[in-house]
Amino acid sequence: MTAASESKDIVLAFSGGLDTSFCVPWLKERGWTVHTVFADTGGVDAAERATIEARAAELGVASHVTVDGGPAIWEGFVKPFVWAGEAYQGQYPLLVSDRYLIVDAALARARDLGTNAIAHGCTGMGNDQVRFDLAVKASGDFRIVAPIREIQKEHTQTRAYEQAYLEERGFGVQSRQKAYTINENLLGITMSGGEIDRWEAPGEGARGWCAPRSAWPDEPLQVALRFVNGEAVGLDGEDVEGARLLARLNTMFAPYGVGRGIYTGDTTIGLKGRIVYEAPGLTALLAAHRALEEAVLTKQQNRFKPDIGRKWVELVYEGFYHDPLKADLEAFLASSQRMVNGEVMLETRGGRVDAVAVRSPHILNASGATYAQSADWGVEEAEGFIKLFGMSSTLWAEVNAP
Amino acid sequence: MTAASESKDIVLAFSGGLDTSFCVPWLKERGWTVHTVFADTGGVDAAERATIEARAAELGVASHVTVDGGPAIWEGFVKPFVWAGEAYQGQYPLLVSDRYLIVDAALARARDLGTNAIAHGCTGMGNDQVRFDLAVKASGDFRIVAPIREIQKEHTQTRAYEQAYLEERGFGVQSRQKAYTINENLLGITMSGGEIDRWEAPGEGARGWCAPRSAWPDEPLQVALRFVNGEAVGLDGEDVEGARLLARLNTMFAPYGVGRGIYTGDTTIGLKGRIVYEAPGLTALLAAHRALEEAVLTKQQNRFKPDIGRKWVELVYEGFYHDPLKADLEAFLASSQRMVNGEVMLETRGGRVDAVAVRSPHILNASGATYAQSADWGVEEAEGFIKLFGMSSTLWAEVNAP
Amino acid sequence: MTAASESKDIVLAFSGGLDTSFCVPWLKERGWTVHTVFADTGGVDAAERATIEARAAELGVASHVTVDGGPAIWEGFVKPFVWAGEAYQGQYPLLVSDRYLIVDAALARARDLGTNAIAHGCTGMGNDQVRFDLAVKASGDFRIVAPIREIQKEHTQTRAYEQAYLEERGFGVQSRQKAYTINENLLGITMSGGEIDRWEAPGEGARGWCAPRSAWPDEPLQVALRFVNGEAVGLDGEDVEGARLLARLNTMFAPYGVGRGIYTGDTTIGLKGRIVYEAPGLTALLAAHRALEEAVLTKQQNRFKPDIGRKWVELVYEGFYHDPLKADLEAFLASSQRMVNGEVMLETRGGRVDAVAVRSPHILNASGATYAQSADWGVEEAEGFIKLFGMSSTLWAEVNAP
Amino acid sequence: MTAASESKDIVLAFSGGLDTSFCVPWLKERGWTVHTVFADTGGVDAAERATIEARAAELGVASHVTVDGGPAIWEGFVKPFVWAGEAYQGQYPLLVSDRYLIVDAALARARDLGTNAIAHGCTGMGNDQVRFDLAVKASGDFRIVAPIREIQKEHTQTRAYEQAYLEERGFGVQSRQKAYTINENLLGITMSGGEIDRWEAPGEGARGWCAPRSAWPDEPLQVALRFVNGEAVGLDGEDVEGARLLARLNTMFAPYGVGRGIYTGDTTIGLKGRIVYEAPGLTALLAAHRALEEAVLTKQQNRFKPDIGRKWVELVYEGFYHDPLKADLEAFLASSQRMVNGEVMLETRGGRVDAVAVRSPHILNASGATYAQSADWGVEEAEGFIKLFGMSSTLWAEVNAP
Repeated sequence: MTAASESKDIVLAFSGGLDTSFCVPWLKERGWTVHTVFADTGGVDAAERATIEARAAELGVASHVTVDGGPAIWEGFVKPFVWAGEAYQGQYPLLVSDRYLIVDAALARARDLGTNAIAHGCTGMGNDQVRFDLAVKASGDFRIVAPIREIQKEHTQTRAYEQAYLEERGFGVQSRQKAYTINENLLGITMSGGEIDRWEAPGEGARGWCAPRSAWPDEPLQVALRFVNGEAVGLDGEDVEGARLLARLNTMFAPYGVGRGIYTGDTTIGLKGRIVYEAPGLTALLAAHRALEEAVLTKQQNRFKPDIGRKWVELVYEGFYHDPLKADLEAFLASSQRMVNGEVMLETRGGRVDAVAVRSPHILNASGATYAQSADWGVEEAEGFIKLFGMSSTLWAEVNAP
Repeated sequence: MTAASESKDIVLAFSGGLDTSFCVPWLKERGWTVHTVFADTGGVDAAERATIEARAAELGVASHVTVDGGPAIWEGFVKPFVWAGEAYQGQYPLLVSDRYLIVDAALARARDLGTNAIAHGCTGMGNDQVRFDLAVKASGDFRIVAPIREIQKEHTQTRAYEQAYLEERGFGVQSRQKAYTINENLLGITMSGGEIDRWEAPGEGARGWCAPRSAWPDEPLQVALRFVNGEAVGLDGEDVEGARLLARLNTMFAPYGVGRGIYTGDTTIGLKGRIVYEAPGLTALLAAHRALEEAVLTKQQNRFKPDIGRKWVELVYEGFYHDPLKADLEAFLASSQRMVNGEVMLETRGGRVDAVAVRSPHILNASGATYAQSADWGVEEAEGFIKLFGMSSTLWAEVNAP
Repeated sequence: MTAASESKDIVLAFSGGLDTSFCVPWLKERGWTVHTVFADTGGVDAAERATIEARAAELGVASHVTVDGGPAIWEGFVKPFVWAGEAYQGQYPLLVSDRYLIVDAALARARDLGTNAIAHGCTGMGNDQVRFDLAVKASGDFRIVAPIREIQKEHTQTRAYEQAYLEERGFGVQSRQKAYTINENLLGITMSGGEIDRWEAPGEGARGWCAPRSAWPDEPLQVALRFVNGEAVGLDGEDVEGARLLARLNTMFAPYGVGRGIYTGDTTIGLKGRIVYEAPGLTALLAAHRALEEAVLTKQQNRFKPDIGRKWVELVYEGFYHDPLKADLEAFLASSQRMVNGEVMLETRGGRVDAVAVRSPHILNASGATYAQSADWGVEEAEGFIKLFGMSSTLWAEVNAP
Repeated sequence: MTAASESKDIVLAFSGGLDTSFCVPWLKERGWTVHTVFADTGGVDAAERATIEARAAELGVASHVTVDGGPAIWEGFVKPFVWAGEAYQGQYPLLVSDRYLIVDAALARARDLGTNAIAHGCTGMGNDQVRFDLAVKASGDFRIVAPIREIQKEHTQTRAYEQAYLEERGFGVQSRQKAYTINENLLGITMSGGEIDRWEAPGEGARGWCAPRSAWPDEPLQVALRFVNGEAVGLDGEDVEGARLLARLNTMFAPYGVGRGIYTGDTTIGLKGRIVYEAPGLTALLAAHRALEEAVLTKQQNRFKPDIGRKWVELVYEGFYHDPLKADLEAFLASSQRMVNGEVMLETRGGRVDAVAVRSPHILNASGATYAQSADWGVEEAEGFIKLFGMSSTLWAEVNAP
C-alpha cells in the first residue's frame, strides 16, 4: 500500500454539522484533497440529504457521496444484534452503532479512491472516537486524521474556535447548542447531557420519538412479525425488507411510548455516562425474536446463548467491531438460528410491548399439548430424576450438615 | 438421628387446598401423626389464615402452626434476589420461590417435634416437586412423603380421586378448577394454563393484581426508595421494614400495570413452560436497585456481577436453594453491596417503571461534573489509550488483512 | 417411522465382552433378530477384531459388522476437542467419548436395516448409560433396549447372573475381573476402581501405555506438528491423516510418560468418580495447538474462546453430543481456526511436553521483532492508556478511599 | 490530603538495580527527599539485602527500609491465588505479582512519612508500569513519579543514559545485560527475551531453579500437605507458616524439574509476550489444593468456581489488584473454602507432580464406598433421570430430526 500512503486524497465522514464542516477547510489548508461521504443511516429525510450535499459543495470538497446506509445497518448491525438478543449492561440497545457503518462506507470510498487516509470529526473526550478509530485500525493499514482532536491539543473552547474559523473563511454557521446532545438514526435516539448529567430526572429537552403518556392511543396495537432463520422478513402478512421493516416498527410503536429508557453506562474510557434512549422498533423486534427463541431453542441453547450475545454487545460497544472474535461469535449466532422460523404476535397497550402469541413448526412441545398433560414419564422416573439431579447437594448435606 | 427416624410424627406443608387437605387423612391412615404448617408468604389475609387453620382442625391434625413468612421471604429470597439483579431467562422474577421458605418452616417444625419426616402435596409432573424435594434433601437427613405422587403411581385422574377420598370420609370439598393455575404470594402472581398453553394470547382468566390499561391513573407516580448496603430500608422518606415495603410497592405500582409479563421458560424437567406473571413491587425494587448500582459500582463490578446474579437465579429456579454454591455466591453479592447506599426516585406513567434520579455519596463521578466536562485527560492520552486498547485487533489487521 | 417401529431387527453395539455377549441370547429369547456392530475406535488389533467377529457368530447373530471408527473419531471428536482446547474440570480429556461414535455407527446400521431398535450393554449405575441413551434419544425416534439394566431390576450380582446365563446356553465365558475397570481406545486409557476408589495412590494395576520413570529414554524427543485451520495434518514434515497421526503421537510420547494424570470428577449422576487416565498423543496435540493459538489469535479471542471450549467439553461429558448447542459451539470454533495455520515444535524430556517453538505467517507480532523493542507508541500514550484503562477503579478510590 | 500533597518526601520502590539506582539522584536533583523501600519478596538472601541497603546509603537516600514481604505475599497473593486455582490463559501462575506487595509496602511507608508521592523504576514500554500505576491509583490520592518513563520521553537508549548519568555522579555501575530478562521472587522465576522472543526454543540462558532432566533424582518424592479452609498449614506432618512452606516446596520440587513451562501471553497492552517460567512450589501447592477441592466441593461448586478464579487471575494480571471487584471475588472464594480441610499426598517422579491421595472428613462419598457399589438408586430411577435430563434435546430431535 505504499502508493496509497502517499496519496493526498482523504475521505471525511461528513454529517454537515459544525464539527465535520470545520474539518473540510482545516484539512484542505493542510494539503489534503477532501472527499466527503455521508452515510444515511436513517436520521434524515431527502431534504436534509440535499442540504448536506450542498454544504459539502459550499465547503469546496473534491467529491461528495451519499450512501444509503439502510441495508448495511440491517445486515451489519440489526440482524446480528437481534440474534445476540442482549443489551449493553442489560439496558442500552447500542443505538450509536451506526458509526461502524459510517466507517465502512468511508473505507470503501477510500479504497475506490486509492487512498488510505481517513478523517472524522470526533473529539478526544468521548467514546465515539474509540469506536471510530478502532474500527478503522482493525480494518487494515489506514491513516486517521482527527481535526477536532488536533485543535483540542491547543484550544479548550473548540466549538467557538471552529465557528470563528469557518466564519473567517466566509462559511455560514448554524449554531444549535442545546441542553441535550442528541444522536438519531434508524436504530433510535440517544440523548445525553441536560438534567440527567446531574443525576436528576430528564426534562422535556430529552424527548424524542416516543409519545408522552397523554398522547398514547386508547386502542391496543397488535403486530405480527414473521422470522426466517432469526431474521424478520414479514410484517402483518406482508414481506418487508429489513431497514424498511424497522422504520415501520418505529412508526408503529413510538406513539405508544414503547422502547424508551434511562440508564447509566460504564463507558469504554471508564467514566459513567447517563443516557436517555428511545428505540421503539428495535425493542419490539427484540421482544418478538426472544419469544420465538424461547419456544424453539433447546434448554441448553437458551441457557448458553446469552453469554455469546453479551460478548457480542460488549465488543460492539467498545469498538471491537472488526475484531475476528466478533465474526466467531456471529458464526455461533447464525448456527443457533437454524430453527428460528415462525410468526410472533406483538401487542402494546402503552409503555411496554409483549409477545403474546407464537406460531412455529419448531416449538419444542411434546405433541403440541400443554405441558402438565403431555407428561410421558412416570412418577418413579420423576423421583429418580430428582434423586440423581440433586445427588451432589444431598451428599454434601449428609456429610456436612450439623 | 436414629431416634428421629423412628418417630411417627410427620410435618405437612399445608395450604388448605384440595391436594394438601387430601394428604392429611391419607397420611393418618398410613400410621402418621400429622402436624400441619402453614407458612404465610403473603397470598392470604387474616380471614383466610383462620379458614386454613379451621380446615386443618377439621381434618384432624395433631397440631397446626401458622408461620409469618414475611421476614423469611425478605431475608432468604428478596434481599439476595435484588442483589443478584437478574431474572430467570432474563424475564421471570422467580415468583414461586416462596416454596423454599415453606420448606424451611416445615423443617424447623420437624426439628422442634424431633422427627425427620416431611410431607408435601406436590405432584410428580411439575417443577415444584424438584424445588421442594431438593431443598429438603440438601438440608440434612430427612424422609420425604409425597402422597399425591404416590397415588399418581396408580391413578390418572388424581383430583377426582382426592375429591372422592375426602368426601367418603365426610370432609367437604370446594372444587375450584379454573382455566389458569394461579400461584400468589408476597412476591407476585404466576399464572399457567389456559390460552397460553396453546401459545395464544392470554385471555381475561390470566388477570391478577395489575390494572388493565383503561384503569391506569392519569397522574404519574413517583416513589423514592432508600438503600443501605443494597437493601431497601426506606420509602418516601419513611423507614419501612422489608416485607411491608414490598407489599406497599405492590399496592402502589399494580394500578399502573407495572411488572406484568409473559414468557416461555425451559423448566428443570426440560419442558417448555409458558407463564404470565405479575410482580409490580419486585419490578420497581429491581429498577431502583439497578440504577443505584450503575452509579456506584466500578466498571469491573458492573461487568462481572451479572454472571453471579444469573447463576444465583438458575440455582434457585432449579431447586439448589441449599447447595453451598448459593452461599458462596451470596458472599460475593454481600461484598458487592458495600457502597450501594443512597436514594433512587422511581417514576411510572403506566406499563413501565423508570429510575429517573439517583443520589448517593458513592457515585463514581469525576468531581460531580458531567462527564464531557470533567475530562482530566489530554487528547494525546486518549489517543494512547485507543492505540494500546486496540493493539491486538490492529496487529491482526496488519498481519491478516487482504 | 411406523414400519420401522414394528421391525423385530435390533442393532446391538457389541464389544465381545461379558455384558454385550450376554445381550445376544437374552435379546434373541425375547424375539429380537440381533445384528451386532463393532466400532473399532482403536483399542484392538486385527486379531482381536477377528475374535470379536467370531464371538458374534458363535452367539448366533443375524449379522455382524466391523466399522473402522478412526476417521469418525477424528472428525467427530478429536478435531473439535482440540479446537475447544479444554479438559473436563481442567483435567480429564474425555477419553470415553468413543461411545458417541459407537452410537453413530449403530444408528447408521439401524437405518440401513430399516429398524429403530438399538441395544447396548451399559449398566444402570454409571455414566456411560447417560451418554449412550442421550446420544440415541437426541438422534431421532429410536427405541433403546438395555438388557443389563433390565436384569438389574431383579438381580444384584449381575456379572454372576450373566455368566451363568451364558454357560447354561453352552457359551464359553472368559472371566477377567480385575482391580481396575479399564477403557482403552485411540484417545487413551481410562482406569477406575482399585486403590483410587479408596482415595489412595494408584497401584501397579493402574498402569497403561505410559512408561514408568525407570524406562524413560535419556534423549529428549522433538516432534514437529503442522496445522491447517487448526487441524493437525503433518508430523515431522510428512502429511499424515488424523487417526494415524494420533496413533503415532501415542506411540512417540507414551515412552516418556507424557499425558498421564489422576483426578476426581463430578459425574453426570452427581457422584465423585476418581480416575487415572493416560492420553499421550492427545496431550501432545493439545499442547501444540494451544501454542499456535496463543500466537495467532487476538487477545479478545484468547480471552473468550475458553468459555466456548469448556461448554463444548461439558456437553460432551454429560451426553449432549447431539444437542444443537454443540453444533452452534462448533460453528464458533471453526470460525476461530481460520488463521490457526503453522508449525509447532514439541519437546519432551519425560513427564511433560512443551511446545518450544512456533512458526506461522499469522503470528501477531509487531514487525516480527521482540515486543520490548517493537513498541511503536510513546511514553505519553502509555500513560494515557493506563489513566483511561484504570479510570473506574481510580474514581472508586477517589470517592471511597478512607 | 492537601498537606501531604505539598510534602517533598517521596518513597521509591527500590531494588538496587540500574533503573532504581538511577532514580535516586534523578529525583534528588528535582528537589525530592528520597526514601527507599525494599520489599523482600524472596528473590534475595541476607547478603543481598545488605548490599541493597548499602547501595541506597551510597546513593544518599534520606532513609531506607527493608520489609519482609513473605507474610504479605502469602496473605495478599498466594492464599487467594490458590483458592482461585487458575492460571493466566490457563498457564502462567502470575509470578510477577510481587509488584503489588511492593506497592503496598511503598504506600504504607508513604503514609508513615505523611507524603503522597511515590516513585518507581518501570519503563513506559512494558506491563509492569500498568500493574504499578493502577495499584497506586486505585489505593487513593497518590502522585506517581516514574523517572525512567520521563527520560524515555527524550532518550531512546535509556540504559546507556542511566549508566552515564550515574557514572558522572561518581556512582559505580554493575552492568549485567543478559540474553534474558529475569524476575525472581518467592513465587518463582519469569524469563523473557533471548531465543523465545524469536519464537524459537529457549536456550540455556533461560534456566532457573528447575534442574535439567539429567540431574533429576531417581527416587520419587512424596510430600503431604495439610489444608485448613483451603490454606496450606502443614507439610509432612509439621505445622509450617505460609511463606516458609512455599519456600520449602520450591526447594523440594525444583530438583525434579516440576513447574517449568513456556507460553505466549496476551499482555495488558495488547502485545504478545513469550515467557519461560518456573514455579515448583506454587505448582505443587495448586495440584494438592485442586485434588482436595475435587473431593469436597459439590458439583455445582466445582462447575462454577473456575469462572471466579479466572476473573481473579485476569484482574491481578491486568493491574486491578485494588479494584473492589477483587474483594468481591475473594468473598466468594473464602466462602467456598469452608470445607476444604484435609490432607493431600503429592508425588513426583520428574517433570510433573500428581496429587495421588486425599484424606478429608468432607469427601462427598456415599458412605465412603466406591461409587459403583454405593449406588442407592434403582435402575428405573436412572432411566427417569436420563429421560428428564435429556428431555429438551429429545424433543428437539422429535420435532426437527429429518
